[in-house]
Amino acid sequence: MKKFTFLCVLLVHYIAFHIAIAQKRAPRNFPEYGFFLNKQQLYIQELLEFLRIPSVSASSEHLKDVQAAAEWLKNRMLGAGIPNVQIFQVGQYPLVYASIAAAVPQAPTVLIYGHFDVQPASVEDGWNITKPFKPRMIQDKIYARGASDDKGSLLSVVHAVEAILAVSQGRSPVNIKFLFEGQEEIGSPDLPNWLLKNRKLVQSDLLVSADGSMYSENTGSIVWGLRGAGAVQVNVTGPSHDLHSGGFGGVVQNPIHCLVHLLESMRYENGSIAIEGFYQGTRPITQKEKDLSRQSAKELETELSRLSGVSQLVGGESNHFDIVERLWFRPTLDVVGIWGGYTDQGIKTVLPANAYAKLSFRLVQEQIPEQVVEKVIQHVHLHCPVGCTCEAFDLGFHALPFESDPDMLGNQVLRETLLDIYQGEEPKYVRSGASIPLIGFIQKEFQIPAVFLAFGLPDENIHGPNEFYRIGSMDKARRAYVSFLYHLGERYQWERNAKKPEETPSVSVTATTSTSMKEMEMDHSEL
Amino acid sequence: MKKFTFLCVLLVHYIAFHIAIAQKRAPRNFPEYGFFLNKQQLYIQELLEFLRIPSVSASSEHLKDVQAAAEWLKNRMLGAGIPNVQIFQVGQYPLVYASIAAAVPQAPTVLIYGHFDVQPASVEDGWNITKPFKPRMIQDKIYARGASDDKGSLLSVVHAVEAILAVSQGRSPVNIKFLFEGQEEIGSPDLPNWLLKNRKLVQSDLLVSADGSMYSENTGSIVWGLRGAGAVQVNVTGPSHDLHSGGFGGVVQNPIHCLVHLLESMRYENGSIAIEGFYQGTRPITQKEKDLSRQSAKELETELSRLSGVSQLVGGESNHFDIVERLWFRPTLDVVGIWGGYTDQGIKTVLPANAYAKLSFRLVQEQIPEQVVEKVIQHVHLHCPVGCTCEAFDLGFHALPFESDPDMLGNQVLRETLLDIYQGEEPKYVRSGASIPLIGFIQKEFQIPAVFLAFGLPDENIHGPNEFYRIGSMDKARRAYVSFLYHLGERYQWERNAKKPEETPSVSVTATTSTSMKEMEMDHSEL
Repeated sequence: MKKFTFLCVLLVHYIAFHIAIAQKRAPRNFPEYGFFLNKQQLYIQELLEFLRIPSVSASSEHLKDVQAAAEWLKNRMLGAGIPNVQIFQVGQYPLVYASIAAAVPQAPTVLIYGHFDVQPASVEDGWNITKPFKPRMIQDKIYARGASDDKGSLLSVVHAVEAILAVSQGRSPVNIKFLFEGQEEIGSPDLPNWLLKNRKLVQSDLLVSADGSMYSENTGSIVWGLRGAGAVQVNVTGPSHDLHSGGFGGVVQNPIHCLVHLLESMRYENGSIAIEGFYQGTRPITQKEKDLSRQSAKELETELSRLSGVSQLVGGESNHFDIVERLWFRPTLDVVGIWGGYTDQGIKTVLPANAYAKLSFRLVQEQIPEQVVEKVIQHVHLHCPVGCTCEAFDLGFHALPFESDPDMLGNQVLRETLLDIYQGEEPKYVRSGASIPLIGFIQKEFQIPAVFLAFGLPDENIHGPNEFYRIGSMDKARRAYVSFLYHLGERYQWERNAKKPEETPSVSVTATTSTSMKEMEMDHSEL
Repeated sequence: MKKFTFLCVLLVHYIAFHIAIAQKRAPRNFPEYGFFLNKQQLYIQELLEFLRIPSVSASSEHLKDVQAAAEWLKNRMLGAGIPNVQIFQVGQYPLVYASIAAAVPQAPTVLIYGHFDVQPASVEDGWNITKPFKPRMIQDKIYARGASDDKGSLLSVVHAVEAILAVSQGRSPVNIKFLFEGQEEIGSPDLPNWLLKNRKLVQSDLLVSADGSMYSENTGSIVWGLRGAGAVQVNVTGPSHDLHSGGFGGVVQNPIHCLVHLLESMRYENGSIAIEGFYQGTRPITQKEKDLSRQSAKELETELSRLSGVSQLVGGESNHFDIVERLWFRPTLDVVGIWGGYTDQGIKTVLPANAYAKLSFRLVQEQIPEQVVEKVIQHVHLHCPVGCTCEAFDLGFHALPFESDPDMLGNQVLRETLLDIYQGEEPKYVRSGASIPLIGFIQKEFQIPAVFLAFGLPDENIHGPNEFYRIGSMDKARRAYVSFLYHLGERYQWERNAKKPEETPSVSVTATTSTSMKEMEMDHSEL
């Protein structure tokens, strides 16, 4: 009887949806939106609490805080009515996992992904509005490390699912798996192996990432590509200890000079990368890619200039590719940190014993992080100047590039949702130069397509000082997750009811088998 | 009557001296040596106390400690019986000044120079024997920042003069001026102007530097050259704040890349310096210079390798000059510090807003620090890569190169003293690659020749971690100062008594007029 009622509710939703389309998309209303009323202050307080936990995965001294963030999230999910929330230890880092079975048969399975760890941050980087882990609300913004990347969007997922379970008496329109990790910002080094050993926890029809961003405050985006990433540290050694620059200068090789020479040898004058084999796996940009990138080029260029505060966008292979092409389709090699010798006030006339650099690179198409890391390390060994010792090692940050068909089923459903949320405004089809390590990996290893439903915005200083999140995005995010999950359930029902295989929507990469919750629960208890 | 007695004492000293020479230099004994007996423990405790003051001139937070070191030194000098010890404020730094009138007419005037400020030091630099300002005595060595450079030798000057005044009832064989400064390690930026305004405090026949070093534990050295120095900081700016390296990498210029390119542009592949006009004021090495450098070459090369812990001495213009030539007669440009971006554990994928470097250079012959600083700053402006802003500024560390005739009168007297102290072992005639800013300035502006009577040794890690000083050097130093001052007084008496102008010893640079103490006292009260 309950099942029948629920199916009726779904049918009503579905009819309402098509009426909305017929009526030029008057935003569809869900009963869950009523549940959100008068809860904004509570939700804000919760986010502030979450942000106060300095869950910096890069720093061993913050390991306990990453753990604390996992515990906090687990408790909040349990409070939302999500059953069986578990924390798995994956390497040194916690993973928060849970699943909900759909109330309807043959419902699709959605894997919702997000991360509760954050980038390092210190006041010295330029945090002048508040300290990174003392969240501060000014008008419509919350300033704190992790506010936009990714605690804001992540928490809204919990709020949305809480509303669905409350309004529908614990009945979900789709099977949901939650995969919330604590090592994204260091490249999720331990997760790939763990996921391969726990395949059934991952199996699903669609991955929905709560990590990512929208186009602007008034326009959604459909992200159809991410760059991959990797990182290497270079350590250069000269004398056995710091020397007097007068007593030894000109006679003993200076390791800073060696490092500078080495780093300069990695790049040609024209900005392209001189490391042998670095470009292996890249291919020319296609006409379709060029066309899609040109659609947003002008707006994006203006925005990139404004956000970075530079008048000329001249980084990378400036002479060879347009700006958006460089960001979406070309790899990079950036020195993200360099240090050695005396760096305090005034002068110390020292010839230092060591010099160091951290390199990170962004990868595209068929480039493989492990292979590029190896090429960079080889280059360091081959080009080490006489008089120094040069070592290089993998920093364990590996992300495969990710690409999807902008028109696949998941993105179609996403479009419907975004039209709802942004008052009928068409979303932009864009790519991001950033990386989410697990997305590319799950697509490659599990053949699960991914969509991005995250409400950070490009100007919110993620990874930099004064990161912030818009309070208005919280409401958009929770409504969007309600809308998306219902739309997806309906669309799958519709596809199945139609029973015409030739009408299956064109999808580039999509799993066809839905995982039953019985299987999921079994897996759960196995671990 | 007293004057007559004192002259007799001098005569006895003089006769004893020539007897010593005749007897193949059996080390000459001074009554002051008796005064030193049983005082070594006391002297050590004093040095430890002096070393506990972290008088780092480069750091504004240690300014009060530089002041404290000046007060400590002043009190110790007053305790030694030196009258009218004064502290002058020269810029932000104290200068300890005093003078003693000779007990004999027409005695020469000696300006004893030293410094009580020290180089910066922090445990992270590799101090693993003790903390920099917690002096620790292990067997015959005292470990602490400033032990060898220059508090050890400086304190022995006070002990020596204390002994002379005590033994001779306050009567000195020469006029002595003490010029102990607190800004040597930052290049004595404020002193040149101050000295020019207080010329009479400086006027003297010979400068004796208590800053410098001896050749080895068993061999003295006569230093006849120092390199000059200068320093510049380079600040490179890219975006207005740290950016996400994924969201902006390849599109926004990375200031670390700009800095690396800029620094690399300053040096040719062969190690010579590519900054236009940098070599202005240098000249080819003369045959005499080559000969003198070759005398010590083999020993010095072995020692440089051992002390630096490198197997190959390949820094600087390796292809063009021999090792000792590079150290003694050639300029250098060293990056002494570099920093920018993320330098902590793991990885932060950031495209930083800024990158910085500190450069220091060593100068020779007729190079002028201010001019070279200007050339370096011009180079930075001319070679700043597109997309970055590059600024450079003078760090205020200016030292003129210094050269003297190895055979001048001051060095002849020094040789006699060193033969005494080192049991008849001939001293080595050497130069140093290091700089003492005031020495070159005083020589140039006041035509006062300089000798070096300082007992640091080359392996004592000055400017580096675990700096130390040998306790045995303390005794050598105080005996040497007693010996040197008496030798010098006698030598001048002898030169005058001979009254044969044609027999005046060959000196390259030497002042001929001795400043009367009356003048000195007047100057004193004028300030």
